[in-house]
Amino acid sequence: MPVDAGGIGEGPIETILGIDPGTIKTGWGVIRVDGSRLRHVAHGTVRAATTLSQDRRLQRIFTELARVVREHQPTHVSLEKVFLARNVQSALKLGQVRGVALLAAAEGGVPVAEYNSVQVKKAVTGYGHASKAQIQQMVTALLELSAEPQEDAADALAAAICHGHLCAFRTSAATTGRRGRSSRGLRWPVEALPGGKG
Amino acid sequence: MPVDAGGIGEGPIETILGIDPGTIKTGWGVIRVDGSRLRHVAHGTVRAATTLSQDRRLQRIFTELARVVREHQPTHVSLEKVFLARNVQSALKLGQVRGVALLAAAEGGVPVAEYNSVQVKKAVTGYGHASKAQIQQMVTALLELSAEPQEDAADALAAAICHGHLCAFRTSAATTGRRGRSSRGLRWPVEALPGGKG
Repeated sequence: MPVDAGGIGEGPIETILGIDPGTIKTGWGVIRVDGSRLRHVAHGTVRAATTLSQDRRLQRIFTELARVVREHQPTHVSLEKVFLARNVQSALKLGQVRGVALLAAAEGGVPVAEYNSVQVKKAVTGYGHASKAQIQQMVTALLELSAEPQEDAADALAAAICHGHLCAFRTSAATTGRRGRSSRGLRWPVEALPGGKG
Repeated sequence: MPVDAGGIGEGPIETILGIDPGTIKTGWGVIRVDGSRLRHVAHGTVRAATTLSQDRRLQRIFTELARVVREHQPTHVSLEKVFLARNVQSALKLGQVRGVALLAAAEGGVPVAEYNSVQVKKAVTGYGHASKAQIQQMVTALLELSAEPQEDAADALAAAICHGHLCAFRTSAATTGRRGRSSRGLRWPVEALPGGKG
């Protein structure tokens, strides 16, 4: 939950796991922040068969995310906050998936940061109301991927990039002694998309 | 999720763990169904300090419920379905707790049954719109407890009793060869509360 999780920017390298929880598909993406550079590490999507009971689906998602945490040893987990849902039932179901995602982080001892949708989109595309397709494009460009990741994995990578932005900024501020909102010197798109306004 | 979880009533003794997930307090209660008799085994409430981050709170709840599953080896977990929530945020938060509760069941290999609020209240008090206090009273009487359990634990025991009702009924039906809706011969209150109408 704490956005200002302790330890951000203390070391030169941070590994960030972004998660995009979903009742049908849960995306995840791992990036590494080395100073002001972002590198792609891995990404994927967990599909939990709808033929399984909901507890088994949650177990499948938890098991996979716990495996990702073990394998990549992230220093932070980043998630998008949810403000809207179609109705109480979909909020409950999404909450259940978020619950096991948060648990996977806690069981790995990894602090969790949360950002709202506008923050995530702005960090990746420079535009707070970017479309899913624009997110996919920019994630692919920023992380120099050879192919566009699927929507859910792209959203997860975007959440990771959003937190990486903060890590990189803090490292940069600590190195140069600067304070304030400027992100000069960082590899971040501000108006990178055609028509993107931030 | 499956109410008609396999194996119900196949053996004379079932151990049922009822869970009442809540963002501040999560109640749990274990009962044993021996033929048509219900016996209290244990109950409790998990309090996750609000000073903890939400992922740590979920971890605390999961750890405690997983311990209860290990210790009491339930054959079924019973939960109340949720249809209403104040708003999307409270549905999401409640969903998160339900997520880790369902995971604790799945990790223990225990099938989950869900009942709506009216079914649970009716099973315990004979009245589908009973108050919290009436539930506490009837749970205490039915399980011959020396003291009233706290609200959340009472609700959890009520969910367990509701599923126990089904187990006991099936055992009875299997034994006597009866079919149908009658619960004659079972130790169940139908109009046990003053003014309770079913």
